[in-house]
Order: sequence, then C-alpha cells, then structure tokens
Amino acid sequence: QDRMERLRANKLFETFVIAVIIASALLIGAKTYEESSRFDRWINWLDLGVTLFFLFEIVVRMAAEKRFLDFFKKGWNVFDFVIVVASLVPINDSEMVLIARLLRVFRVLRLVSLIPELRILLAALVKSIPRMGYVALLMFIIFYIYAAIGSFMFSGVDPVLWGNITIAMLTLFRVATFEDWTDVMYDTMEVYPYSWIFYLTFIFLTAFVFLNMMIGIVLDVMQK
Amino acid sequence: QDRMERLRANKLFETFVIAVIIASALLIGAKTYEESSRFDRWINWLDLGVTLFFLFEIVVRMAAEKRFLDFFKKGWNVFDFVIVVASLVPINDSEMVLIARLLRVFRVLRLVSLIPELRILLAALVKSIPRMGYVALLMFIIFYIYAAIGSFMFSGVDPVLWGNITIAMLTLFRVATFEDWTDVMYDTMEVYPYSWIFYLTFIFLTAFVFLNMMIGIVLDVMQK
Amino acid sequence: QDRMERLRANKLFETFVIAVIIASALLIGAKTYEESSRFDRWINWLDLGVTLFFLFEIVVRMAAEKRFLDFFKKGWNVFDFVIVVASLVPINDSEMVLIARLLRVFRVLRLVSLIPELRILLAALVKSIPRMGYVALLMFIIFYIYAAIGSFMFSGVDPVLWGNITIAMLTLFRVATFEDWTDVMYDTMEVYPYSWIFYLTFIFLTAFVFLNMMIGIVLDVMQK
Amino acid sequence: QDRMERLRANKLFETFVIAVIIASALLIGAKTYEESSRFDRWINWLDLGVTLFFLFEIVVRMAAEKRFLDFFKKGWNVFDFVIVVASLVPINDSEMVLIARLLRVFRVLRLVSLIPELRILLAALVKSIPRMGYVALLMFIIFYIYAAIGSFMFSGVDPVLWGNITIAMLTLFRVATFEDWTDVMYDTMEVYPYSWIFYLTFIFLTAFVFLNMMIGIVLDVMQK
Ligand code: NA
Ligand code: NA
Repeated sequence: QDRMERLRANKLFETFVIAVIIASALLIGAKTYEESSRFDRWINWLDLGVTLFFLFEIVVRMAAEKRFLDFFKKGWNVFDFVIVVASLVPINDSEMVLIARLLRVFRVLRLVSLIPELRILLAALVKSIPRMGYVALLMFIIFYIYAAIGSFMFSGVDPVLWGNITIAMLTLFRVATFEDWTDVMYDTMEVYPYSWIFYLTFIFLTAFVFLNMMIGIVLDVMQK
Repeated sequence: QDRMERLRANKLFETFVIAVIIASALLIGAKTYEESSRFDRWINWLDLGVTLFFLFEIVVRMAAEKRFLDFFKKGWNVFDFVIVVASLVPINDSEMVLIARLLRVFRVLRLVSLIPELRILLAALVKSIPRMGYVALLMFIIFYIYAAIGSFMFSGVDPVLWGNITIAMLTLFRVATFEDWTDVMYDTMEVYPYSWIFYLTFIFLTAFVFLNMMIGIVLDVMQK
Repeated sequence: QDRMERLRANKLFETFVIAVIIASALLIGAKTYEESSRFDRWINWLDLGVTLFFLFEIVVRMAAEKRFLDFFKKGWNVFDFVIVVASLVPINDSEMVLIARLLRVFRVLRLVSLIPELRILLAALVKSIPRMGYVALLMFIIFYIYAAIGSFMFSGVDPVLWGNITIAMLTLFRVATFEDWTDVMYDTMEVYPYSWIFYLTFIFLTAFVFLNMMIGIVLDVMQK
Repeated sequence: QDRMERLRANKLFETFVIAVIIASALLIGAKTYEESSRFDRWINWLDLGVTLFFLFEIVVRMAAEKRFLDFFKKGWNVFDFVIVVASLVPINDSEMVLIARLLRVFRVLRLVSLIPELRILLAALVKSIPRMGYVALLMFIIFYIYAAIGSFMFSGVDPVLWGNITIAMLTLFRVATFEDWTDVMYDTMEVYPYSWIFYLTFIFLTAFVFLNMMIGIVLDVMQK
C-alpha cells in the first residue's frame, strides 16, 4: 500500500497519466478522419493499451487508500471511476461500437479531475448555478407563455416552426439568439400583420431579464 | 373566516395550488399537440376542474380577509383575480375559443405571484425600468431619425423594408440585432454606393448608447 | 426684453414647444406613408406653421438675452439655431425637396436640447468618447492589416467582398458582427483551405480587444 | 553618437516617422485598388523610399545606443527590427511578390511601437492573456468532446460540416457565434430528431463558461 501511495504521488507518474489522456484524446480525434481506417488495427491496439493503463492507474489509486471504500468518498474519484469503467465497453463489438466510441470520448474529462486549476474552476462554475435558478425559472415561464401563444396562433402558418409547444420553444430560442429571426417574423406577418409585436415584446422581455441577471450576478459576487 | 385563513396559510394547500398551476400549464401545452384531439373531452373536463379550483382558491383567500375589499389592496391579489376571472371565458364556445385559450395561457403567471422568490425578482425587474426611461427615449429618437431618413431615401429601392417609417423602424431594429443586416445594406448600396455610412453610423450609435446604458446601470446599482 | 424672458421661462410655453416638436416629428413620419399624398396640401400648411413657430421661438429666446451675441455662447443654442435655420429650405422647391425633407428630420433632435435629462445623458455620452480613442485606433490598425491581407489574398476569389481595402474592411466588420461570416469563410476555404485561420484569429483578436475595452471602461468609471 | 541621439529624440523627427508609417499604410491600401496599376512605377519608387527611410531610422536608433547590442535589449526595438528587415524582401521579384506585399502590411504595426499610449494598451492586453488560460483550456475540452460526438454521429448526415474532428470544431465555433446555427441543427434533426439536445446543451455550456469568465475577470481586476 505504501509503495502504491508513493507511485500515485510521483510527479513523473502524474505527468505520464496526463500524457496518456491527451494521447487517448488524439486517438479519438484520429478515428474521425476517414483515412484512419487504414490504421484501424493500430488504433485498436493503442486503445486497448490506454484502457488497460487507466484501469491500472485507478487500481493503484484504490490500493493507495487505507480502506478500500475511502476511495469513493471523494467526488472526483467517483467521477474518474465511472469514466474508466464506462470505457471498458469493447470497441470491437459491432453492435455497441457507437456507444463504446462515445463513452471513450469522455476520457478527455479526466484532464479536469487531474489538473487542480481546472477542478477549482469547475467547482466555481457549479457553485454559480443555483444563483441562476429562479431567473431560469422566470425565463422558462416567459418562454412557455410565448410558445403557447405562438403555437395557438401560428401553427397554421408554419407547422415546422410552431407545430406544438416544444417546437415553438425551440423556435423562440432561435429568435432569442437573433438567428434569422426576421425570416420567422416575416412569415407570420403575412397572415397576422401585427405579429411583430409578439416578437419584439419577446425579445425585449428576454433581453431585459437576461441583462438584469448578468448585472445581479456581478453585484452579488462583488459583495462577497 | 378563521378556518379560511388557516386553509390559506396551510403549506400543503399551497403546494397543491402550485401543482394545479403546473397541471394547467401542461394542459395548455398538451392542447398544442395535434394528437391531443383524441383526448379533447378529457382535456375539457380537466380544464373545467382547474377553472373551478382556481375560483375556489381565490374565494378562500377573499374570505380569509377581515374586510372583503382589503383583498384588492395588494397588487398581486388583483393580478391573480384578473387572471382567474379572465379564464372564466368558456372554452367550448366556438367563437371565442382562441381568446379563451390565450387567456388560459396566462394562468402560468400565477406561479410568479405564488412563489415569493419570483415575486421579489419581478419587483426588482420592474424597479429597474424607470432607470432606463431616458435612454429608451434617446434610442427612440435615434431610431426615428434614421427611420425617416431611410424611408425617404430607400423606399424606392425596397418598399418591403423601407416603405414607411414604421416598417423602416422594424428594419432598423433588425439591423441593430445584426440579423442579415448586410443583405439590407447590399440592396441599397447598389443604388446608393455610400449608403454603408448610414448603416455603420447607426450601428455605432446604437451600440454606443446601449453599452453606456449597461455600464451606467451597473455603476448606478453599485452605489446603493 | 423682460416680457420675452418671462415668455421663454413660462412652463406652459415650454410644454407647447415640446408639443410642436412632436407634431413636427409625426408630420415627418406621416409623409413616409404613401396614403399621405392625398393630404399633401394640409401637410405643407402644417409644415409652414411649424417652421414659422420655430423661427418665432428662437427669436423670442434671442430677444430674451441681454446682448444679442450672448445667445450664441451656449452650445445648445447654436445647435437649435442651426436646426431651425437649416429647415428654412422651402419644401415646395422640387429640386431641393429631398434635402429639405432630410433637414426637417433633424428637428426631432430639438427634443434633446429641450429636455434637461436628455441633455445630461448626451453630455455623459460625449464625455466617454475620448476614453475609447486609443482602443478605436488599435481596432482600426487590426482591421487595416487584416483588410490588406484579405484583399491581397482573396480579391481573386470574390471581388465583391475583397475587391479593395475599403470593401475588405466592410466585409471584416460584417465578420466581426458574426453576420453570415461562415459564408464568407467557406467561399475562400474552397481556394485556400486554411483560410479559417485568418477568420478565427481576426474574430479572437477583435473580441479580445473589445472585451478588454469594456472591462477597462467599467473599472475606469468606477474609480471616479 | 551624440548627434544620433539628438536626432532620435527630436519631436519633429518622430512626427515625420509617424507620417511615413501612415504614408506606407496608405501605399499598401492603394495597391489593393485595381486602378492603382497605372501608377505602379510611382508606387514602387515610393515603396523603395519608405523602405530606405525605415532602414535609415533604425540605423539612427542603433547608433544612438552606447553599445550596439543594447538596442536589442528592448522588446519593442526587436519588434521594429524584425518588421523593417522583413520588408526588405524586394517587391519587384515576381516569385515573392505576394510574400513581400504581406510583409509590408505589418509596417502599420510600427504605429503601436511608436505611440506610447498604444504600447501601454497592448502591454495591458498581453498581461490579461494568462488569466484566461485555464478557461480557454476548459473551453477547448468542451469543444473537443462535442466535436468528437458530433463527428461520430453526424458525419454521415453532412460530411462538409461534421466530416472530421477539425471541421466539427469549426462548425461548433459557428454554432457558438449563433451563425445560422439552426440550419446546422435542422439538418441533423431530420435524421436524429432529438439532436437539438446536443446543440442546446452545447450553447448553454459555452455561454455559461464564457459569462463566468467575463465576470471572473471583472472581479479579478477590481481587487487590484
Ligand atoms: Na444570420
Ligand atoms: Na446572426
């Protein structure tokens, strides 16, 4: 156990782990190139190597703990464990090849759990989520009301954009990002000439709530 | 009256009211799906239930007041009352079916009047409106001047975009959101090669006023 | 002179001036509607009335001063004087009708010189311009270098977008506003597959300078 | 050496250097106009003049130093030296004409090294880069994971947008700038109706990280 702990704390070993993670990321990237099919066998061997090394590294870290279950007390350990176990799905299996590939993609996230600065950054990000909770709820209510009105009024004009409330909310999100929103508006204005009021009030409302949220967060964080 | 007050203050009753509001929101959403026509009778019965419950709940809250008219002294009570009364319009009536549906949509807003955090949030939002008043007036003057110039100069080039001052203001709002604004510009540049000056000065002016407004608000709020 | 001063300071007179300005703005707006041609004679008579009233009002303000030239010592007086004199161009003259109309548009700006809050707002805006001077120069250098490179490399690919350095700067401004910038990029990528580097570095540079400018202004203003 | 130092410190000489830089920038701009071919000989003579003057000016500054190598101790001197030497590539040489032209473009950057305010501004910008380092890494990881998933899932739907991980990252950057992102989404939604989840989570994640970075920088700078 002592030797395991020394190995885990070894700076060289840590650097090597980071190197393997980056190599595994490059491997994933390489697979997306068509030309990679010629090196398929090599890539599969390398993938097996990465998988076994990750398994080895996590076993080392488990063995370094005094009691086996202590390992799972740290959130980031569980995070690593899930990623490593999930990527044990064999990639050769033709049925699950897509799932196996997708699960391997998340290995890149091990960079976050390994580099302390990224861990701190992510913790800060997660901490700032609840602050946005009620604003998000208010936003959702605005979207829901406008989506309901939009889908009652405009579903006959363009069912692809306003067919039901889910699609209408997606269309409203598109309007909120200013993405070709005038095309959406001009379409409905041909039937309802005053429907620009619908879009303008929606844009003003969401922009107004969004800006106030931003300012609120800045002031909130500053007081601490 | 005492029993009424106890009922109103009951936590379980409050949670149930929230549940009914969410159910009524889901009901509205469900109606926008084409497949919902098969369940029309069910949906109408449920809608009747929601309507009656809302009526019952507002009567309870009125009866809980010492004097009947005290109920209308609180803004949020008036807000709830208007929403509940407005959604009494029968949904079966074929002539007013669209209006009845639209009015029912606003029931979702009762979430805001019921959840204290949302009420505080909305009060803060409303409070920040006057601060923007004069900036909005200045913005409007900029839009009006550019819309007048644009409609004098370009109405011959593209009457759909610059036909009169109202349409021209809508087109300028589109330019201000950067939505395919170059298409608008390239059109007029074919006739007036220097019309890019019109668009660029407009974009710089509005962006400049907008940014200063934002900074002004941040600083203004911070001093309090 | 005393009576003139009393008239100028009269609250009712001031309100009436604002009303005339708004009426003149509505008149300008009305002229952009095609249907307005039926009321052309009326509109021209009203325009004459507004012009004469503005002339009368400025003469009153001049006469209220102790010495005639004191009137021109205030910037806002000169501002009003220029607007009023400029709109003396007769609107019936068929040759100068467009110029006469455009000059009349600027009468709306008299709202700014009349309402104290707008005057303060505008003064604050003008004051914040020099702070942006050197950042604007840096921005211009970035645009100039990229426009020169872009027009050397891509003028053969699409002369409409990259024909010379002026057009190239306009195209780059379009890219900076994210307006169909990928269309511009995909065009040049067909000839120069790595030209995405050109666009991405440009976007990152301008966004980076812009964000830093924003933050700089916030901090700069806060210290005062 | 003393005379050299006096010349370098001369205000008139400095102004003249700035004038030559601007003239050289205008020269570069002029070359991008097709009509300029008529003045080719003149432009080439002027270019030679600018090149020789820049060479002369840098020699003056070198001679003004007590020891020759002291000149290279200042970063901005090296910066100027590289630009001046790089633009010695003859512009008449038909093989290297494009490179020679491109290298001459960077002469405009000498404005930055000459104007103290721009130098300070640029130093402040460069200083703020490391602060963004780890956020940039996190952003890159998000982009990499989404690009890998996107290219595994959608490369069959549209190889032009999702063919390999590099192209997929470019497409995701396009989505992050909201540039016709719904076109990208609608394409893949025809095959995978729930792929909007992919785009919405991506947009929320990147916007969330970006906003937090912005707020972080504001607070970070404010504490100093
Ligand atoms: Na667009
Ligand atoms: Na856009």
